Amino acid sequence: MKEKPPAALVDFCNSPAANMHQLPLPAVRLKGGFWLGWLERIQQVTLPAQYRLLEETGRLENFRRAAGSPTFPGGSFQGYYFNDSDVYKWLEAAAWGLALADPAPAKELAGQVRQVVKWIAAAQSSDGYLDTYYAGTRAGQRWSNLRDMHEMYCAGHLIQAAVALQRSTGSRALMRVATRFADHIHQVFGPGKRAGICGHPEIEVALVELYRQTRRRTYLELAQHFIDQRGHGLLGGRAYYLDRLPLRDLERLEGHAVRAMYLCAAAADVYAETREPALRQALERLWQAMIATQVYVNGGLGARHEGEAFGAAYELPNERSYAESCAAIGGVMWANRMLVWQDHSPAARAGYADALEWMLYNAVLPGMGLDGQSYFYTNPLADAGGYDGAGWHRRQPWYDCACCPTNLVRFLASLPAYFYSTSAEGLWVHLYGQGEAEVNLPGGLGPSMKVRQETRYPWDGRVRLEVQPAEDLVGPYSIFLRLPGWLRAGDIRLDLNGRAWEADLQPGTYVELRRTWQPGDVVDLELGMPPYWLESHPYAVENSGRVALGRGPLLYCLEAVDQGDWSAWPGARLQDVAVNAAVLPAVQDAPGLLGGVTTLRMPGTVEPPHPAWQGRLYRHVPAGADPDRSSLITLTAIPYYAWANRAPAAAPHHWAMQVWLKKER
Amino acid sequence: MKEKPPAALVDFCNSPAANMHQLPLPAVRLKGGFWLGWLERIQQVTLPAQYRLLEETGRLENFRRAAGSPTFPGGSFQGYYFNDSDVYKWLEAAAWGLALADPAPAKELAGQVRQVVKWIAAAQSSDGYLDTYYAGTRAGQRWSNLRDMHEMYCAGHLIQAAVALQRSTGSRALMRVATRFADHIHQVFGPGKRAGICGHPEIEVALVELYRQTRRRTYLELAQHFIDQRGHGLLGGRAYYLDRLPLRDLERLEGHAVRAMYLCAAAADVYAETREPALRQALERLWQAMIATQVYVNGGLGARHEGEAFGAAYELPNERSYAESCAAIGGVMWANRMLVWQDHSPAARAGYADALEWMLYNAVLPGMGLDGQSYFYTNPLADAGGYDGAGWHRRQPWYDCACCPTNLVRFLASLPAYFYSTSAEGLWVHLYGQGEAEVNLPGGLGPSMKVRQETRYPWDGRVRLEVQPAEDLVGPYSIFLRLPGWLRAGDIRLDLNGRAWEADLQPGTYVELRRTWQPGDVVDLELGMPPYWLESHPYAVENSGRVALGRGPLLYCLEAVDQGDWSAWPGARLQDVAVNAAVLPAVQDAPGLLGGVTTLRMPGTVEPPHPAWQGRLYRHVPAGADPDRSSLITLTAIPYYAWANRAPAAAPHHWAMQVWLKKER
Repeated sequence: MKEKPPAALVDFCNSPAANMHQLPLPAVRLKGGFWLGWLERIQQVTLPAQYRLLEETGRLENFRRAAGSPTFPGGSFQGYYFNDSDVYKWLEAAAWGLALADPAPAKELAGQVRQVVKWIAAAQSSDGYLDTYYAGTRAGQRWSNLRDMHEMYCAGHLIQAAVALQRSTGSRALMRVATRFADHIHQVFGPGKRAGICGHPEIEVALVELYRQTRRRTYLELAQHFIDQRGHGLLGGRAYYLDRLPLRDLERLEGHAVRAMYLCAAAADVYAETREPALRQALERLWQAMIATQVYVNGGLGARHEGEAFGAAYELPNERSYAESCAAIGGVMWANRMLVWQDHSPAARAGYADALEWMLYNAVLPGMGLDGQSYFYTNPLADAGGYDGAGWHRRQPWYDCACCPTNLVRFLASLPAYFYSTSAEGLWVHLYGQGEAEVNLPGGLGPSMKVRQETRYPWDGRVRLEVQPAEDLVGPYSIFLRLPGWLRAGDIRLDLNGRAWEADLQPGTYVELRRTWQPGDVVDLELGMPPYWLESHPYAVENSGRVALGRGPLLYCLEAVDQGDWSAWPGARLQDVAVNAAVLPAVQDAPGLLGGVTTLRMPGTVEPPHPAWQGRLYRHVPAGADPDRSSLITLTAIPYYAWANRAPAAAPHHWAMQVWLKKER
Repeated sequence: MKEKPPAALVDFCNSPAANMHQLPLPAVRLKGGFWLGWLERIQQVTLPAQYRLLEETGRLENFRRAAGSPTFPGGSFQGYYFNDSDVYKWLEAAAWGLALADPAPAKELAGQVRQVVKWIAAAQSSDGYLDTYYAGTRAGQRWSNLRDMHEMYCAGHLIQAAVALQRSTGSRALMRVATRFADHIHQVFGPGKRAGICGHPEIEVALVELYRQTRRRTYLELAQHFIDQRGHGLLGGRAYYLDRLPLRDLERLEGHAVRAMYLCAAAADVYAETREPALRQALERLWQAMIATQVYVNGGLGARHEGEAFGAAYELPNERSYAESCAAIGGVMWANRMLVWQDHSPAARAGYADALEWMLYNAVLPGMGLDGQSYFYTNPLADAGGYDGAGWHRRQPWYDCACCPTNLVRFLASLPAYFYSTSAEGLWVHLYGQGEAEVNLPGGLGPSMKVRQETRYPWDGRVRLEVQPAEDLVGPYSIFLRLPGWLRAGDIRLDLNGRAWEADLQPGTYVELRRTWQPGDVVDLELGMPPYWLESHPYAVENSGRVALGRGPLLYCLEAVDQGDWSAWPGARLQDVAVNAAVLPAVQDAPGLLGGVTTLRMPGTVEPPHPAWQGRLYRHVPAGADPDRSSLITLTAIPYYAWANRAPAAAPHHWAMQVWLKKER
């Protein structure tokens, strides 16, 4: 591993407003435990399957055709005009996949990467422009419709793939292509040059990272220029494009949720480099407003189907949520870039880390099926299960607009990068999971320490951290452990080498262990994981009178298939179930279920609608309550990320799912 | 009045499956009472204002330009490609407006009608085709995109205007244009000719009426052909266009709500002529499913902004409803066409009339402002009042897509036609309102009787019906009075000439008074109008734990501006109000409010969210209930149709509105 170049996912090492930076991705190994299965599937199933789909759907052929050497001569551009981005996102995923690979990278994947890079390079125009939709006869129309045609969006993903490849493998082959395109864009656009911004933010975040990789300040300035230009009507002034108001003037997020997240992530990146107070204030204000009024209980973002957009405050329909998988990924990207800012209180920092972890488990992870090759585009929080003509919601192997599948794999392949940061004070542990890391503390030469996590997290809150400082590591260093906000005060225990660590252990902050670390030091952290009931703000009208269920960092849900024999309750559906929020569910491991999950079991009732409702939607309020016709039921909840992974053959209601559960009357 | 030709809005006189038909529109006079103000405003404000807008927005110029004599030479087609339809809809409204006018039609309106008809006629091509978008250089592209370009939709509105003009004024000038265009369409499309249907149904309902007017069966057959072709993929098989499945196979309505209503109305018209059982079964099934799972409590239709579409069963967001005004009009059109079928039980017939009346007062009427010149396109059932960035919803003087303003005026101008029908048995009174009617009973020569309603309905449930049979009217005839479904059993009283009429008076049917009517006979009907609370099916999740308020045929709502001094409840909003559904509100007339309404007043509580919610959307369910911090409040409800007619200057929450009110905990 020492031979590998540093490969931070986002490189804050020289960012003046950041005082911590991520460990290089190959320095973190998630061995065993919850995440191993996901990362293995990505390498063994997802990346090969998506490569085949890129080929089958003409996305790779588009590059060969643009280069003048199509495999199937005579064809034309295939698919959506933004399909190049899927190739770039796969490539970024493959780059991180190569870094993850242990032992040596899979030969086949490495070969595919080399080949795809060659096809991309060959498709580039002599002036640096690169977009296979605008190859050939359409070349004269380049940049003619910045609002809709995603040319800079694709360029952004090209740049991110190039940066990833260099950081992961050291190869600069794609970086040459990306910088040539970036330089071409810089020649065309910018202050004093052509006015214009891309309808879909993405190039901004890429340009900042290209600046960090190359230290060429023009890229950062261009990113800032694109952000500054937005909101002044270049895109028709429409909220959909985040063009109604400048970002610095917005009070609440609006418009297309993925675009909003990418724009905010980019603005956070720019702030990290420029320290512009107005930008930070705007981002913190928008983040707070989002968390306080616009986020789903699972961390999902974007309530509206129309415009794939944020809704108004408290507009959070469950079955009709949009909550695009890409928006959740964008939310994690943004949180990750706010987390590192200096001048944060530990609690403020932990707030971003809490959101990051919650979105990761409960909004990103549901986007990918347990088979590693099926994906959600939208993520409902309830499913009628096929009743009443409402089609049940299942993951699909691909989409014509394949942004989510390729985004999910590129995100999950980079997951190890999110676990740890270092700062001048020492090591920060943001996420818990079985595995180990080699840590370069700032100022050190070579690995300063190894840390190893032994844990069944997220199924169990006990985390053992074994610390092996390098021989040359001198002086005291701190290890900061995140105490998640979902904890209850009093449910935290922290031991060093078997003896209680003296500290005020509060949820929602980091606890600092500062000492001169000795080989073999063992930290035992115990995060209490009783299940808990959640309720929502009274203005979120769909959740009124309902509760949701969580345990540790996981949101739970009910799927009808787990609730026993529905024939015992004629006419009943999952919607008819009610729970008693005064009773805490029992925790029960189910190793054979859904790849191994911990279930929560609780008593409840089931009561189909009173027969008076037959054929009607409204009625006069009756003088007395309807007679109680409820039956007792034992309910089994599963983690929300794992829903819709079974195909029950029985009646349609076996497909139903609910996050928000009625409280018993 | 005797000189005027018969002018039924929908002419069922010769429809084999219909056993009742509407009174001719000019035979019904709504003098005084609730509707007079609306009809006067239409004539004095709405029709002139819309004429000016048709001119200002280039809609009339489009015709002059297509005819080769533009007022402003050198211009091009202005506005949306379907803008011709607005001119036709205004013309249909003006036609009914001329029929309503009493005394003699307003000279200015009659002159405008003659002028517009001339412009339309001049724009018609020599082959009969007529669409100003496809005039001039675009002539070669006619019928090239039936799915999107609305040519037949516009043709349908032309035909309906022509039929209306002939029935109202006797003028056949526009009928000649319309039949030439219809004949042209019949030459191009139909069995054995070109395959194709319009993306937006409308021509179907128009062709059936053209058949009824001309007795030329080809028009009926073409209408049926268009209905039969739908659902077989000619429009890409998309639900939006009602093309996923044939209408006869649908289990529940889907897709664009206005298109769905127009299609169903047309299919009901076709059934009235053909008696095809499968069509009737499908229509009755779809109606029942709509009423049982897809209609808003106000009768509004279409839950989804995306696609302006019906949602799944029980998908009924309130603040984010779509509920286009045009869809409610379409709902009334459909109900009106189902009402007349033979073989209905009186209760089944009354069910359609109940829906018709409810939609009229509570879903159509809200679409037009009390100023007669502002309109809602979408109709939310709640409004946050500008809080949290949610813009408050106000009627607009016009829309670029002006379907709703022109539809509202054409519908309301035809309203008198909906009050009465005749059948072989006698006279049917569907709607109550101050005014009089001249009734030709079947088989009679000249008016058989005059009836006069004295009533303050909908503010008061007492209706006095004075009957004046013509001297030559012999034998017994029945008068059928509708007993609305919102009545409570026991709340109905019926007297003839001061003596109780012996009958089982049940809500939701018609009561028949059969006798040999004498001059001066007086029927006194008293429909009890205590306020009532409504609740909704438990699967309509947004309404869970909430109630709505009605009285008579009116749905009520709360507007914040009526609830007193909000500064007494710091931080409170209209959403924080709760009511006690065990208490019936007090009825209180408010002659000076909103053109004169009856308000409902009741005690309630107001309680802002607990401070623990500050800055957060979710929390762990606390062990105990939050302390009661509620304050008592006296609430005032107004009819829903009248909301958003004031512009309070005070704080934003004064703009808020709610239909569904929380029940006190």
